[in-house]
Amino acid sequence: MNTPWWLSPCKAVDREVQAAAAERQQQLTKPAGSLGQLEALAVQLAGLQGRLKPRADQLWIAMFAGDHGVVAEGVSAYPQAVTGQMLANFVSGGAAISVLARQLGAHLDIVDLGTVTPMLDLPGVRHLQLGAGTANFASGPAMSDAQGLKALAAGRDSVARAQQHGSELFVAGEMGIGNTASASAVASAFLQCPASHLTGPGTGLDAAGVSHKARVIEHALRFHDGYLDDPLQTLFRLGGFEIAALAGAYVACAQAGIVALVDGFICTVAAMVAVRLNPECREWLLFGHRGAEQGHRRVLESLNAQPLLDLGLRLGEGSGAALAVPLVRLACDLHGQMATFAEASVADRPA
Amino acid sequence: MNTPWWLSPCKAVDREVQAAAAERQQQLTKPAGSLGQLEALAVQLAGLQGRLKPRADQLWIAMFAGDHGVVAEGVSAYPQAVTGQMLANFVSGGAAISVLARQLGAHLDIVDLGTVTPMLDLPGVRHLQLGAGTANFASGPAMSDAQGLKALAAGRDSVARAQQHGSELFVAGEMGIGNTASASAVASAFLQCPASHLTGPGTGLDAAGVSHKARVIEHALRFHDGYLDDPLQTLFRLGGFEIAALAGAYVACAQAGIVALVDGFICTVAAMVAVRLNPECREWLLFGHRGAEQGHRRVLESLNAQPLLDLGLRLGEGSGAALAVPLVRLACDLHGQMATFAEASVADRPA
Repeated sequence: MNTPWWLSPCKAVDREVQAAAAERQQQLTKPAGSLGQLEALAVQLAGLQGRLKPRADQLWIAMFAGDHGVVAEGVSAYPQAVTGQMLANFVSGGAAISVLARQLGAHLDIVDLGTVTPMLDLPGVRHLQLGAGTANFASGPAMSDAQGLKALAAGRDSVARAQQHGSELFVAGEMGIGNTASASAVASAFLQCPASHLTGPGTGLDAAGVSHKARVIEHALRFHDGYLDDPLQTLFRLGGFEIAALAGAYVACAQAGIVALVDGFICTVAAMVAVRLNPECREWLLFGHRGAEQGHRRVLESLNAQPLLDLGLRLGEGSGAALAVPLVRLACDLHGQMATFAEASVADRPA
Repeated sequence: MNTPWWLSPCKAVDREVQAAAAERQQQLTKPAGSLGQLEALAVQLAGLQGRLKPRADQLWIAMFAGDHGVVAEGVSAYPQAVTGQMLANFVSGGAAISVLARQLGAHLDIVDLGTVTPMLDLPGVRHLQLGAGTANFASGPAMSDAQGLKALAAGRDSVARAQQHGSELFVAGEMGIGNTASASAVASAFLQCPASHLTGPGTGLDAAGVSHKARVIEHALRFHDGYLDDPLQTLFRLGGFEIAALAGAYVACAQAGIVALVDGFICTVAAMVAVRLNPECREWLLFGHRGAEQGHRRVLESLNAQPLLDLGLRLGEGSGAALAVPLVRLACDLHGQMATFAEASVADRPA
C-alpha cells in the first residue's frame, strides 16, 4: 500500500508574514491588545494565508450527511428518516445552514454519504451511497475499511472543489440522526474517559435517555476493545460516514492551505480524528463556538482550542461555525483597514 | 420645573407578537432550543419591534466623545490630546469603529461634546463644546447641572436623528481619554463597592497605575459623599459628557422604540445610569460583549445582562457592540427565513 494521502505534509505557515502582521497590529490606532482574540486571529490568518492582510470573503460550506446504525439502540430523540428529510430542506433553503449560507454569500456543497432513505435523488446533492447508513457499532464495526476510505476521500474531494472555487475559508457541517452517539464514542476512545463524561442530550434526549446512550457507548467501547489504539480503526469502528468525511476535509484543508472553521461537538471530534491522523493540520483549524453539548468542552480543551462564540448552540449543520464567520471577516477588515498611529497622526502612548 | 424628559414612559413591548414569535421558534426545522441564546434574542426583538419577523438592517452608530479633567491625576496611559486626534481618525475612516461602520453599512453619527483641543472643527462631526472636557472630579463636580442636561439631551438628539433615518438598531460608542476612571467612579457609587473592585487598566495602565487610579477614585467618592444617592447627581459629579450622552441615548431609544446594543464597560455603566433614571428602559437594551475590564463583569451582572460575545475586547468606540451586530442580524434571518417542520415536511420529534 502506498502512503495514504492524509499523511502528506500540510502547507507550511509563513512565519515571516505572520511576524509582519503581528508588527502591523501593534501600529494600529487602538490600545495594544484591545481587540483581544481578534488580533491573534488576524495574525494567525496572515501566516496561514501568507499575506499581510488576510481575507475570508470567499466562503465554502460543505455539508456532510449520513445515517447511523446505532440509532437501533434508541439513542436519538428523532427518527432516522429525518436525515434524508433535512437533506431536502438544505436544498430548498429552509434549514438553518441554508439561511446562513445565503446571508454569508457562501457556496453550499451538499454531500450525502449514505442514508436510510432508499433512492434519495435530490438536485444539488451529491449522493455517494456508501451504504444505507453505517452499521450498528454496538454489535460490530460501523463501517468497512473500504467505506471509511471512501468517506475520508469525500471530504478531501469537497476541499478540492473549494480550492478550485478560490475559497479562503472552509466551514464544514454535518447532519445525521444519531451522530452525537458516534462522536461521543470516538471521543471517549481517544480521551480514554468514561462515555458518560462525553455524552449529552444530542437533539433532545431526557436524562434517562442520556444515561441509556452512555451505557450503549460503554458497551460498544468494551466490544471494540483492542482495536481502538489506532485512530483510523477507531474512526471506522465507531464513527460515521459524515464524521470520516469531516476528518478527511480538515486534513485536506491543511494540505491545500485553506483555513477551516470548525463547528460543534461532532465536527470537533472529527477535527480530533484529523489531528490524530496528521498532527500538522491542527494549526489550520479555527473553532467557531463552544456548544451546549457537555462533551464539546472536553474535546475543545483536548485540542487547546479557543472558540469565538459561546451561545449555547447545539444545532450542528455547521451553523455555529457559520455564525462565527462575520467575526473572522471583521477581524480581517480591522487588521487590514485600520489606520496606523503614524498614518492618522495619533499619539501612541509614551514609550 | 417640568417633568424631565427622561421620565417619560418607554414604548410598550408587544407581548402578543412576542408570544407568536416564541411559538414560531418552536416550529422551525431544528431541535427545540438548539440555537441557544439566538432564539431568545429573536423573540425579544420581535416583541420590541412589534413584528413577528424582526430586522436589524438599518444600523445607527453614534459616537460620543469628551475629555476628562480627572486625567490631571495621572489615571490614563495616553495623553488627553488623543481624544481630539481620534475624532479626526473617526472621520477619515481609520479608526476601528470607522472600519466596522463601513463594513456593517451603518450610519456613523459623531458627536464631540467637549475636548481639550481648542477650536476643533472637523467636517462630519457635531462639535457641541459643552466645555474643554469635564472638570477634575477628584476635587469638584465633573460638570455643572447645565452641562449635564445638555449632554443627556445630546444623546437623545442622536436617537431622534436615528429614528428619522429609520434605524432598527442603535449602537453607541465612546471616546474619551480617562473615561474608564469616570465610569469606575460612577459604578462604585451605584454598586456601593470599593473602587478597586471596579477599576482596571483602561487603555493600558500597569498594576501600580491601576492601584493609583483606584485610590484617586476612592478619594473622590469620599469627597462627593452625601451627593451620591441621586443617579443624576452621581452622573454629573463623577461622570463624563460622553457618559451622560450615552445614558440619555439609551433612555431615548427605549422611548422611541429602537433597540440599543450596548458596548463595553463605559457604555454599560451609562446603561446602568439610564436604568436608574428610567427603569423601564432596561428591556430595550441588548449587550454586545463581556469585555476584559474587570469592572465590566460586575456591572453586567448587576444589570442581569447576557452579552453575545466574550473575546477579551477593551477598545471601546462601540466596537464590541458593532462586532455583535452580525449575530443580531443572523438571529433575525434564521428566525424569519427558516422553514417550519410543516413547510419542509420534516418529521418533528414524537410528542
